Amino acid sequence: MRHGTSRDIRTANRYEVLRRIIARSPTSRQELAAATGLSLPTVATLVGELIGLGMLNEVGFEDSAGGRPRGLVAVDASGGALIGVDIAETYVRVELFDLALNALARADEDMRPGENRPEQVVAHVAAAVTSVAARAGVAGARVLGTGVSVPGQVDRVRGVCEYAANWDWHDVPLLDLLAEHLSPPLYLDNPLRACAVAELWFGAARGRGDAVVVNLGTGVGAGLALGGGVHRGVSNSAGEWGHTTLVLDGRPCHCGGHGCVETYVGAPGIMRNLQELSPRSPLLHPGDQTATIDALGRGAADGDPDALKVVRETARYLGAGIADLVNLLNPEVVVLSSWVAATLGEPLLHEVREAVGRYALGRPFAATEIVLSPIPTDPVCLGAATFALEGALRSVGRRGPTTGTAPART
Amino acid sequence: MRHGTSRDIRTANRYEVLRRIIARSPTSRQELAAATGLSLPTVATLVGELIGLGMLNEVGFEDSAGGRPRGLVAVDASGGALIGVDIAETYVRVELFDLALNALARADEDMRPGENRPEQVVAHVAAAVTSVAARAGVAGARVLGTGVSVPGQVDRVRGVCEYAANWDWHDVPLLDLLAEHLSPPLYLDNPLRACAVAELWFGAARGRGDAVVVNLGTGVGAGLALGGGVHRGVSNSAGEWGHTTLVLDGRPCHCGGHGCVETYVGAPGIMRNLQELSPRSPLLHPGDQTATIDALGRGAADGDPDALKVVRETARYLGAGIADLVNLLNPEVVVLSSWVAATLGEPLLHEVREAVGRYALGRPFAATEIVLSPIPTDPVCLGAATFALEGALRSVGRRGPTTGTAPART
Repeated sequence: MRHGTSRDIRTANRYEVLRRIIARSPTSRQELAAATGLSLPTVATLVGELIGLGMLNEVGFEDSAGGRPRGLVAVDASGGALIGVDIAETYVRVELFDLALNALARADEDMRPGENRPEQVVAHVAAAVTSVAARAGVAGARVLGTGVSVPGQVDRVRGVCEYAANWDWHDVPLLDLLAEHLSPPLYLDNPLRACAVAELWFGAARGRGDAVVVNLGTGVGAGLALGGGVHRGVSNSAGEWGHTTLVLDGRPCHCGGHGCVETYVGAPGIMRNLQELSPRSPLLHPGDQTATIDALGRGAADGDPDALKVVRETARYLGAGIADLVNLLNPEVVVLSSWVAATLGEPLLHEVREAVGRYALGRPFAATEIVLSPIPTDPVCLGAATFALEGALRSVGRRGPTTGTAPART
Repeated sequence: MRHGTSRDIRTANRYEVLRRIIARSPTSRQELAAATGLSLPTVATLVGELIGLGMLNEVGFEDSAGGRPRGLVAVDASGGALIGVDIAETYVRVELFDLALNALARADEDMRPGENRPEQVVAHVAAAVTSVAARAGVAGARVLGTGVSVPGQVDRVRGVCEYAANWDWHDVPLLDLLAEHLSPPLYLDNPLRACAVAELWFGAARGRGDAVVVNLGTGVGAGLALGGGVHRGVSNSAGEWGHTTLVLDGRPCHCGGHGCVETYVGAPGIMRNLQELSPRSPLLHPGDQTATIDALGRGAADGDPDALKVVRETARYLGAGIADLVNLLNPEVVVLSSWVAATLGEPLLHEVREAVGRYALGRPFAATEIVLSPIPTDPVCLGAATFALEGALRSVGRRGPTTGTAPART
């Protein structure tokens, strides 16, 4: 809380109140005060601000067992729309949400291999945003903000993608390029941060003090939600758990290192685990990560011995790596997120829990719950849209309830 | 900042203002406002509280280039005393500090091997505290609080040592036992936390957003100072970096695991590195960690090839482990602390910097400074005394300026 200000606290409390209302709507100020630990006058002030912003509605009264009837408030789903953009290596996905973060429209654009110049990516984003806005109709008319997730190192303040390894991007001014096509405000960050924010607002990290969101995809990372907020580090690059050492002098990694966690538990690493354990397995689709992980997921669910062996071996590596996070950070919950975790599902979770138990210290392990992400949709789009929601909440009191003129990068 | 309150912010700001005044005394409210980023009225209020508490004095005026002369404030060193207790495996050390955290008196009690029953340890603490209070004379008369550091898992709220591996302590109610001999308020935590707090207040983490304090002793751990405060985790066991895996299936560790960081860079691990590299080296003092590390420190400073080889190999392991912290947490500074770091000194630091550069990702590495702890005295006693100072600052507004009746465990 260095240089903490009352504004920071008010913003955090505003987040907390809106999170509760989204989770349970309609609700009363009294219930909110009880759920958040804030005083009733504080809750009343925050609710008033959110009503003024057009985000909440008064929706009637509830009986309160003989006492004065309590006013109920709910999210005004039509109070504005939020757009989340997930720029991935092989596709761009855009979703448009109402204020309760229900997805109203979605558009996907495939990108061909090699189609990765910044202006090509920006064109795909612009096309997909135009498409969802048209499909969403009226709701799209009042977009409160657009959040954009791009893989790699991101400077949020300048809106720059500093480095994206897979595309060899260096210091690409992505928000400036996007601003030619999209209305402000725009918010930029990476998928680790997006997934962490999505879990904080809508998933397994909601209401938890310290959570680690383990992202298992082609790449691997850990979004850190500490003290109820996202831990970013001094240059917004925290969470590169995929490039921590699990096996000193182990498998070579594209980062230049050896034995990185990612080389054992990212999708290509899991393919290699399969290749080493069962080189002739029909589950193996050489050169096709998605098909291989899908086959492993189906196989593990059906009790296929090859698939189970690979899941167990992958979980051994993953368990040792997650145990490190448990020992170091002592989180309340560890969330397994992203497509590899979703595809391998319960069989992976079961084996990971066992493995973490073998590798972690007893006490922090006993204090940690390990779960699959409960978010049913694309957590990156959801989290990116939440960047825009947070931006709107941060700006309360700095401007009126209408939007579109706020500084793009706060 | 989950459930953050205005009280939390006021306490954090009070910490920040007093830190600045201790670092540079006398100083003006204007300088404090400029240094902390707080408003002048806020600084004036906080300074007023600290004067009311007897911690600060008005000490005159400074010229301000033609403007109104500015009032100067300084720490009232005689405004109270703080006691820090460092309970270690082989000794108990107690230091008594004035309010500017200058050590006024110190007492050491050796503990014989096997002398580790709770009541034996408590007797040593009581004897040492009595001794420093007597030596400090008048200053000892107004002790604002006593902080106690004990190795292992600590429940700060109940004042209980839940688990200390080396002594096989389970759920020892240490503060209740100490309360029979010492005046309240008492504060309990472990050495990782004590060193992190000492660096935050008086060392290399002061004024930094995110810092990692790497403790290198017989045991190894990482105190995490994130967002300007200590990260404790859900059950106050964060920082067990010594028991994160560096070499999967590597050296056996007393925690039951294999390949833990501690087995390569703790004092016994370094002895083993020496044994493996130069089994007949005269630097090796079998069974005596302190003598061996001392010999290595002298040897490395003198350019002894055996010593340099061991320092380089140890730094390789340490570099890979610290690179994991840099990649995961993206800290502004990494501080090497505790007796092994102090003894091996600059030669170790030099090799560690090189090794972290080889193992860490380029961008977070470029954003991280790696330094030896600048704290010249026992950081554990200093940090433990600071627990008591923080306790006194937390209680402002809850009670009058005199002490001794506050709840012991806050």
